[in-house]
Amino acid sequence: MRAACASAVRLHRAVSVGFLALFLTAIISHAQTDPLASWNDGPAKQRIVDFVRTTTDKASPQFVPPEARIATFDQDGTLWVEHPIYTQVVYCFDRVPAVVAKKPELKDVEPFKTVLSGDHAAIAKLSMPDLEKILAATLSGMSVEEFTTEAKRWIATAKDPRWHRPYTDLVYQPMLEVMQYLRANGYKTYIVTGGGQDFVRAYAEQVYGVPPEQVVGTAGATKYVYDPNNEPSLIKEPKLLLNDNDAGKAEGIHFMIGRRPYAAFGNSTGDQQMLEYTQGGGGPRLMMLVLHDDGDREYAYGPARGLPHTKVGTFSEPLFDEAKKEGWTVISMKNDWKRIFAFDH
Amino acid sequence: MRAACASAVRLHRAVSVGFLALFLTAIISHAQTDPLASWNDGPAKQRIVDFVRTTTDKASPQFVPPEARIATFDQDGTLWVEHPIYTQVVYCFDRVPAVVAKKPELKDVEPFKTVLSGDHAAIAKLSMPDLEKILAATLSGMSVEEFTTEAKRWIATAKDPRWHRPYTDLVYQPMLEVMQYLRANGYKTYIVTGGGQDFVRAYAEQVYGVPPEQVVGTAGATKYVYDPNNEPSLIKEPKLLLNDNDAGKAEGIHFMIGRRPYAAFGNSTGDQQMLEYTQGGGGPRLMMLVLHDDGDREYAYGPARGLPHTKVGTFSEPLFDEAKKEGWTVISMKNDWKRIFAFDH
Repeated sequence: MRAACASAVRLHRAVSVGFLALFLTAIISHAQTDPLASWNDGPAKQRIVDFVRTTTDKASPQFVPPEARIATFDQDGTLWVEHPIYTQVVYCFDRVPAVVAKKPELKDVEPFKTVLSGDHAAIAKLSMPDLEKILAATLSGMSVEEFTTEAKRWIATAKDPRWHRPYTDLVYQPMLEVMQYLRANGYKTYIVTGGGQDFVRAYAEQVYGVPPEQVVGTAGATKYVYDPNNEPSLIKEPKLLLNDNDAGKAEGIHFMIGRRPYAAFGNSTGDQQMLEYTQGGGGPRLMMLVLHDDGDREYAYGPARGLPHTKVGTFSEPLFDEAKKEGWTVISMKNDWKRIFAFDH
Repeated sequence: MRAACASAVRLHRAVSVGFLALFLTAIISHAQTDPLASWNDGPAKQRIVDFVRTTTDKASPQFVPPEARIATFDQDGTLWVEHPIYTQVVYCFDRVPAVVAKKPELKDVEPFKTVLSGDHAAIAKLSMPDLEKILAATLSGMSVEEFTTEAKRWIATAKDPRWHRPYTDLVYQPMLEVMQYLRANGYKTYIVTGGGQDFVRAYAEQVYGVPPEQVVGTAGATKYVYDPNNEPSLIKEPKLLLNDNDAGKAEGIHFMIGRRPYAAFGNSTGDQQMLEYTQGGGGPRLMMLVLHDDGDREYAYGPARGLPHTKVGTFSEPLFDEAKKEGWTVISMKNDWKRIFAFDH
């Protein structure tokens, strides 16, 4: 009897341990196999999963051959935080002292004088032409390699004042998961940004897993020169080559990729044409817009859906109406995203 | 004795068959494993093989990580025949009747009148501004999809008057082997052409195995419009966005790829800056120029090395001197290539 009992206990233990192991395996494998773990279950997540399934299943009538699998992502407000102001604009302001150190005659010239004063109220009031002068002075005049070195250095050290973290920590974890999920299913992921192409390229591979050749952005001309060592070099010029906003996004996609995307993600009126152009290709296409409706965890702005108005990443009510009419999916940051950043718990 | 004899004969036969089999296997496997089978042994072939070996061997101090392996190829005169005139120019002339059919008012207007006359001598004398009018009329005004359809249709049917074969048969087999060999070793192959980006994209995947997003070429702006069905469309405009020749090739490479190539192939002064820019990246780099010195199998032109002068794909003596001084390899079509085309025997 004793022996039998001991056997029973051993059996029970063995079974329990077995169940526990099974249970743990199930949890772990679920965590491992849900590629969109930071998304709440709902129509947005479902739409992504359905799109990937139908376009990659060879038996599906909507199968898309691997070479045609192109997905494009706006950056500011779609992949990372764009409020209160675009990160690249912060970079440009931060570069003003270095530019003035090289050209001291700018010290007493506007708008540089105002930027150097550090007077936030005055800086916030700078006009568009003033802002353009600052962008031109800080984004051109150097070789493309020098620019990349500076941009990399800044992005590695500068911190956002709200979260006290590097700007590259402020990428949206759910969107990173979408990019990885699409790539795991044979999609080539492109960034198609109104931001500077060279600026975004400086960190896109490390942050998003997107190589330089898959970054389409606003770009200036470059000038081919020989440096004092007779080495050829490309100098960034203050002359616009591609304005990668609005219709320019469709133009940039054709110019740089030469195919219509099957999936496109944006968050503002600047992405409208990219989504239209994607949908216009016909067949199975995924068009999604991120709505910033979570003022607690991030920022709240629209003015769609009665959200506060903004000039930075405007999501207008007409864009919301177009999304509804065309069957595009609006992603609610508040409801669709379990967490916003990788550091959220 | 008889039995022993028969055994000896059988043994001898078996050994002979064995040797023959070994010998055949060696031949076949050599043919299968030489990725550059259309190249004669010599410094050019050796240079390519050495470059690939040293940049892909992890133990090599000149190892290049896979993501940085970019190789760029000029097209006209480097990948396919460019004489007596660029294939795309033939396309443009061939398109004139269709353009005039749509706009009959052009029928009596120069230079269209001359082109329609079919007078070869008069056509050959057309000025550069006249030629530009023909290019503008035949390469713009339609949607990018309509253009691609037309270009594909033409390239599938038009024939070169010397070989009586489709133009796409006139690609250089040795260069196709280089492209395949580089790709098999993790290189991304790009075409960087002075020709029209959209034109080359129409056949680059099928002919060279190069997808549209890896074709960098001279490109015009496009205009985003809604067609009568309210579908978005990009219309090709007669406005130059990128002149992908000379320094424009370096600019185009930075704009579209964002990295310096490790290998660059060209054949004319229009490729000089692309090769300089490649070499300027430092480390192991492969710069090669195709010299058209085989008037029997293809065309002979320079004027480098005393070859006949030409305005189409000029390889000048100063370019030859630069190649020599900088250690670039000049490929002699006559001596380095066992065969020129796939249909050669």
